[in-house]
Amino acid sequence: MRDRHLPHPVMLAIAGDSATGKTTLTRGIVEALGVERVVSLCVDDYHRYDREERKGLPFTALHPDCNYVAVMEQHLRLLAAGEEILKPVYNHANGCLERPVLVTPRDLVVVEGLLPLATRGSRSCFDIRVYLDPPEEVRRVWKVNRDCGKRGYSEEQVVQELLRRESESAAFIRPQKAHADLVVMFQPLKARGETPDVHPSAHILLRPTIAHPNLTSIITDDVREVIHLKLTRDEDGRPVEAIHVHGYPPPSVTRPIKEAIWAAIGVDAPLPETIGMVEGHCSESLALTQLIVLYHVIQRHAESGTHREAALVTTEARVP
Amino acid sequence: MRDRHLPHPVMLAIAGDSATGKTTLTRGIVEALGVERVVSLCVDDYHRYDREERKGLPFTALHPDCNYVAVMEQHLRLLAAGEEILKPVYNHANGCLERPVLVTPRDLVVVEGLLPLATRGSRSCFDIRVYLDPPEEVRRVWKVNRDCGKRGYSEEQVVQELLRRESESAAFIRPQKAHADLVVMFQPLKARGETPDVHPSAHILLRPTIAHPNLTSIITDDVREVIHLKLTRDEDGRPVEAIHVHGYPPPSVTRPIKEAIWAAIGVDAPLPETIGMVEGHCSESLALTQLIVLYHVIQRHAESGTHREAALVTTEARVP
Repeated sequence: MRDRHLPHPVMLAIAGDSATGKTTLTRGIVEALGVERVVSLCVDDYHRYDREERKGLPFTALHPDCNYVAVMEQHLRLLAAGEEILKPVYNHANGCLERPVLVTPRDLVVVEGLLPLATRGSRSCFDIRVYLDPPEEVRRVWKVNRDCGKRGYSEEQVVQELLRRESESAAFIRPQKAHADLVVMFQPLKARGETPDVHPSAHILLRPTIAHPNLTSIITDDVREVIHLKLTRDEDGRPVEAIHVHGYPPPSVTRPIKEAIWAAIGVDAPLPETIGMVEGHCSESLALTQLIVLYHVIQRHAESGTHREAALVTTEARVP
Repeated sequence: MRDRHLPHPVMLAIAGDSATGKTTLTRGIVEALGVERVVSLCVDDYHRYDREERKGLPFTALHPDCNYVAVMEQHLRLLAAGEEILKPVYNHANGCLERPVLVTPRDLVVVEGLLPLATRGSRSCFDIRVYLDPPEEVRRVWKVNRDCGKRGYSEEQVVQELLRRESESAAFIRPQKAHADLVVMFQPLKARGETPDVHPSAHILLRPTIAHPNLTSIITDDVREVIHLKLTRDEDGRPVEAIHVHGYPPPSVTRPIKEAIWAAIGVDAPLPETIGMVEGHCSESLALTQLIVLYHVIQRHAESGTHREAALVTTEARVP
């Protein structure tokens, strides 16, 4: 039989509540590396019950008991070991559970969803853990915009659903933030007239749980009006580095910073134009997050992949 | 989170082409041990394509390329390690692939189907490997009876399907016989007026790949008219023990033999009445096969399960 044990992939988790920008963040990373190098999957597919069955249950789809969490953990472990899995499929359009699909690990496996960091075992499968953390009022606007647009719900329905899910968000989703290496905390600054509709200012927490790129020579004092580094304390008091980036900094200031991080990544190709792009605009907080994630992906790939022939990022891979 | 790593179960494979009696053999073992101690699954669920998709393909459902063989192997390995799996589901009634189901290993995991012994990796997951091997003319009668009865096909359709599958049976199903510890070779004796419709005489090969019960003091010379032991050579020339049992031996002769094997199993309970039963009659070849399999199951369970409180077979377990 063929050998199904492929080289170990780099494993990236993108956790967060619904409508926090997980898919947008993932898309930019996939586009930068090339679809043939990345496989992405959503662990919300591990729902134990379909929409009809959930109607009679005392919890929402956010509850671990509503998901095959142990199987999710098992599949993450298998993917991290380079094995194929037969992944369950939840159809968001009709709320049905459908035939599973084969997922073959590639150089990078991006795992996004509500609960990828829910257990010690699942967390241990990842090389890089990201948590997206917009304030609830921002998330509400994002979720209404998406669910009323693409998924056909009324604003009233979306707001009701958010209320129904609130206690389980607090109990099961938000605690994952404590286990992330990188946390993106969007923060619209009312004083600057920012609203949740646009790309707000953000703090990006770089926790010392993994070795982040040294940004002290890149984000220097002369750009501190729009972006700055700060040594601060995390919610639990531990030391953490934070990048603060304003909502709409001038590109003349941010472009050299992005170029410098890209240069630190060490890829012999120009900065991908898709970095930070969302709905036709460039979000600088998104761009910085994607670049730091790409830095880690390429570091880990280089560490583990000395036997590989191809570099993870090539010029061809990034041309759509 | 709860510990999903249960004690390692005993793993039993029952391989054979379609309509060779796999389900009948399994049923008697489940009934003897009690449904709460056994979980059985069919690896034909690992079909890669549904019935509609298979219409355009140059092979039948018997071909390894038509099945997720690597995933089957992975799932067998996980079950053998005591882990739950999310098993794919093929609906034989409508030919569709459906939502997967959770399978939790119990004391005994029975894995039946067309290809459970197809790969080195899958074979290594089993403690006991059985292959059912009726002659093709017997299997044809069994398959016509079943598929025309329960599955609503015409005899012409069933015969056509057998012809279509013949080369893949030869290439992929029958080679598994070489990897079984126990082979049941049904052999209607024309000289005795036996037909495939009834329970024919059989050879049961006991390969020295596992430590079979010592039958020399049980199947003695004074019963050799209807059942006897024979030291012989396997198809590849290696030594093998064979039990030959006639189609309809008198119960006065076979009952003490079954009681003696049951006693060797060492369970403090009477011989289960369901042993050997098929469609209201007792097949002695089936009964002997089931008893020898039970002997191995209980031996393996005892070897691996000193930490368990409950014996595998209790009187309660066997009362339906």
